[in-house]
Amino acid sequence: MHSAKVTGFDKPASMTDNLLTMTNAAGLLDDVRRLTEERLERLVPAATIAPERLHEAIRWSLFAGGKRMRPAIVFAAGRTFGAPLEQLTATAAAIEMIHTYSLIHDDLPAMDDDELRRGKATCHKQFGEATAILAGDVLQTIAFKAIAEDISLSPEIRARVISTIAAGAGTPGGMVSGQQFDLDAEGRALRIDEIEQVHRQKTGALIAAAAASGAIIGGASNNELAAIKNYADNLGLLFQITDDLLDVTQATETLGKTAGKDASAQKATYPWLLGIDETRSRAEKVRQNALDALGALQKDTALLRSLVGLIAERTR
Amino acid sequence: MHSAKVTGFDKPASMTDNLLTMTNAAGLLDDVRRLTEERLERLVPAATIAPERLHEAIRWSLFAGGKRMRPAIVFAAGRTFGAPLEQLTATAAAIEMIHTYSLIHDDLPAMDDDELRRGKATCHKQFGEATAILAGDVLQTIAFKAIAEDISLSPEIRARVISTIAAGAGTPGGMVSGQQFDLDAEGRALRIDEIEQVHRQKTGALIAAAAASGAIIGGASNNELAAIKNYADNLGLLFQITDDLLDVTQATETLGKTAGKDASAQKATYPWLLGIDETRSRAEKVRQNALDALGALQKDTALLRSLVGLIAERTR
Repeated sequence: MHSAKVTGFDKPASMTDNLLTMTNAAGLLDDVRRLTEERLERLVPAATIAPERLHEAIRWSLFAGGKRMRPAIVFAAGRTFGAPLEQLTATAAAIEMIHTYSLIHDDLPAMDDDELRRGKATCHKQFGEATAILAGDVLQTIAFKAIAEDISLSPEIRARVISTIAAGAGTPGGMVSGQQFDLDAEGRALRIDEIEQVHRQKTGALIAAAAASGAIIGGASNNELAAIKNYADNLGLLFQITDDLLDVTQATETLGKTAGKDASAQKATYPWLLGIDETRSRAEKVRQNALDALGALQKDTALLRSLVGLIAERTR
Repeated sequence: MHSAKVTGFDKPASMTDNLLTMTNAAGLLDDVRRLTEERLERLVPAATIAPERLHEAIRWSLFAGGKRMRPAIVFAAGRTFGAPLEQLTATAAAIEMIHTYSLIHDDLPAMDDDELRRGKATCHKQFGEATAILAGDVLQTIAFKAIAEDISLSPEIRARVISTIAAGAGTPGGMVSGQQFDLDAEGRALRIDEIEQVHRQKTGALIAAAAASGAIIGGASNNELAAIKNYADNLGLLFQITDDLLDVTQATETLGKTAGKDASAQKATYPWLLGIDETRSRAEKVRQNALDALGALQKDTALLRSLVGLIAERTR
């Protein structure tokens, strides 16, 4: 597959000791980004193919400088269990497409009504609401198609991965459930356990599906899958808590989306309910839980640990 | 599987001569409706499961008295090639969920802005736009999940069916492409070949995917698949032409959706471009093409022929 130099990633999957070369967290994300974007480029119709407006809209949102955190989780979990890169790439791209579809729809006027995302106009501001709805819809379609057609995976694994991701993106207990709970909660004061419930579904379920998918492709046992899911549950919560913190502490320019939006919308967030200091210590506790979960694995977990650090210390 | 009496459907799939008992078109649709709705009932979370509003919204649109035409096509194609009912039911339900998701999103204010569908308030009129967007989104997710988890099918067949349906529902050349073309065309005078292009994608591609999925499950050869797709292409066009005719000739009450809407929106339709008489003779020609396509199959095609009659003579 790739002949270009890839930090750590170009080593045969069987040489799991080479995973130790991937503890450079920044390098990990760079590699993930390139591999994922190369594949997305091939999976999504070119902007010159009709209907051009639809494909432009998809690409506008898909190639807007996203962090590719979910693909990184797929790769980190998959590599931990020895999966070759080639077997992880379509699944990583698919999960990024599902994440992007959810952002496009979440930004719509009827939902969060956001004008700015990753420093650019949101899809509907740029292309109109109707096209944005369709772009989100079809990103989900392309995502599942990509996995179903991934000939590097056995059909059994493809079916399991589609089922896992659909559960994480779906309802009950998945991403769309979480969005509905969030919607139903607006204007109402949520308790901290209710917020956590929303986040576990809205953000956490797809992150857990990303981790589980990578592990399934790598042939993880059921016990190993349980440990990975425990890890990913905490990673997802950590992601949301740091997201809430960034909304309070960062300027719009750094964040690439409208800062302070949660507070102005009176959305229940961790800092809003707990204060910034208490939120920070909760982040630290969740971070430790994620690392502890990895203790159950008899594997080199350097990559998965580096992701925890990346998320805990991110600035956007 | 089902112990209840099912007209024709309860015969072993190997006894293809029994398909002859299913030429009663009305009976076919009744059987398809019951089988499909029983499965949908199990695949979609109950309205009592949280988030209740989301699941109520899904069910509002999914159990709104749809004709279940696409499931009928899955069953008719599958039975023609000897597939057991059990192997066709999840796929039929999945295609109906994808169709329903497209209707929910198509009715949104940013799209067609419809208030009435199948004689009921549209999903967004009843539950609000945000919930309607999410209900449509997650119907697509549940659809692919249902096929991925259908243990009556081999994983190979599941992957092929998901790929086939995703191509029919996606872009380019699929349902969402067609919706985008339709969107881009509004306010502009389309030629008849352009209209046909829109319809082939917007309506035809998913209908063709339904027929192909049934045939794939039944083990059709590539030549047989080509004949089935030719049949389904014409069936899809017939469906759209009769839809356009019904919009002109039927009252809102019979139709269950706002009649005359196409004309008032100055949407390019067959009757608007060709007049009613010429549209009727075009319908007759397409009907004949669909039947001719079946001539290439060395099978009992009574079921597939009865579908042509059903669509040509429908009144809603």
